[in-house]
Amino acid sequence: MPSPDPQPAFVLIRPQMGENIGAAARAMWNFGLDRMRIIAPRDGWPNQKAVAMASGAGRLLDEAQLFDDTPAAIGDFDYVYATTARPRGLTKPVLTPEAAMAEASARIAAGGKVAVMFGPERAGMENDDIARANAIISVPVNPDFPSLNLAQCVLLVGYEWRRAATVTPPLRVDASGDWAAQIEIEKLAAHYEDRLDAAGFFFPAHKAANMKLNLRNLWSRMPMTRADVQMLHGIMRQMVRWKEKG
Amino acid sequence: MPSPDPQPAFVLIRPQMGENIGAAARAMWNFGLDRMRIIAPRDGWPNQKAVAMASGAGRLLDEAQLFDDTPAAIGDFDYVYATTARPRGLTKPVLTPEAAMAEASARIAAGGKVAVMFGPERAGMENDDIARANAIISVPVNPDFPSLNLAQCVLLVGYEWRRAATVTPPLRVDASGDWAAQIEIEKLAAHYEDRLDAAGFFFPAHKAANMKLNLRNLWSRMPMTRADVQMLHGIMRQMVRWKEKG
Repeated sequence: MPSPDPQPAFVLIRPQMGENIGAAARAMWNFGLDRMRIIAPRDGWPNQKAVAMASGAGRLLDEAQLFDDTPAAIGDFDYVYATTARPRGLTKPVLTPEAAMAEASARIAAGGKVAVMFGPERAGMENDDIARANAIISVPVNPDFPSLNLAQCVLLVGYEWRRAATVTPPLRVDASGDWAAQIEIEKLAAHYEDRLDAAGFFFPAHKAANMKLNLRNLWSRMPMTRADVQMLHGIMRQMVRWKEKG
Repeated sequence: MPSPDPQPAFVLIRPQMGENIGAAARAMWNFGLDRMRIIAPRDGWPNQKAVAMASGAGRLLDEAQLFDDTPAAIGDFDYVYATTARPRGLTKPVLTPEAAMAEASARIAAGGKVAVMFGPERAGMENDDIARANAIISVPVNPDFPSLNLAQCVLLVGYEWRRAATVTPPLRVDASGDWAAQIEIEKLAAHYEDRLDAAGFFFPAHKAANMKLNLRNLWSRMPMTRADVQMLHGIMRQMVRWKEKG
């Protein structure tokens, strides 16, 4: 059964090689998408090469819906995107994958039914199919080398879907880190200052204050866990012990 | 010749199949990236399977720089990302591809030299290599199916690079800092490891490897200027001198 989360369907139009269908299934499932529709696959269906390539995402192929033509495949959606590198003279909104999936996410959250169409490997999408789309998704590739294959295009749109659908904070700081409190940083600074003073590090005298300031600044600036602080204490303790053994 | 636009280098660590190296080259060039470094490719170099797969992006393979190990490959960068699905117990910032490439773009705009490391296909990155990175890039995939391959990972990071590089960097990185290059961090790590070994710090023996890994991870994680590194060298030198005076 497809996952219960509302999501867009991905529609493969006349895909040629089974391997590419399998790779597209993997790319979709990497980002939690599992509603695939396939229009008139060249080599028939089911396709053993697709199954072999899909390993781990084979369920998407078992559950894929087959159609004879584009109108039948997209009839029950209320908003459809076409992915194409070259919008060919059709006046239609052209969106980046990011903008399109942000919009799709909003449409789906409001109860809309959304599909994304992908053309056959070599020829790309035909104007007849592009004309049926409400908007175009174009990946901003290097104009000197715009050579995304089917599964790569699926991967990038799927990636943007997941970004749009899950409000991931852009930066995660490892929450498992047991960060040191300021008081521990303070004690570490004092420990080093004390021992380095004894060792004659703060020399010459008129530079000592500035050297201490720089050292304190270093410790404070570092994002340190409790374990880091303990290791740094341990390093200094060991050097002192080594010295005392003579 | 590589393109003149400043950009991150992509470093493939011990890649196994030539096809994957070729596919990675295509994925890079799709987004205008053309500085590839390769560490110890399993099947030697050059690799005809890589060339066959790279069609259209073969220049990247011709110009790729080969290295024997990770320290040599990243020595001249001042900020290095590791891509890994599973940050394994090393405390280090974890960023999405988007956040990482926004940051990389800002660093590069400020004159920084940035690299992104990708691990071997099956095993993924080793902790030894992750410990050398300043931060981790983790793609937010479906936790039930986190099966990105090498070229797909390269594709997504390259895509985010291009997104970040074609807009004004939203994030400001302190350009005034004279940041230490990786080779200097490597030397600092080696200096401490050497001296602490002599001082008997890595005890008991069966814990030594892990203690060394944690210490290396600490140095790599810290945003350090040249002056910071010099101060830390100075601290260790002074402790040794103090010991030697008896």
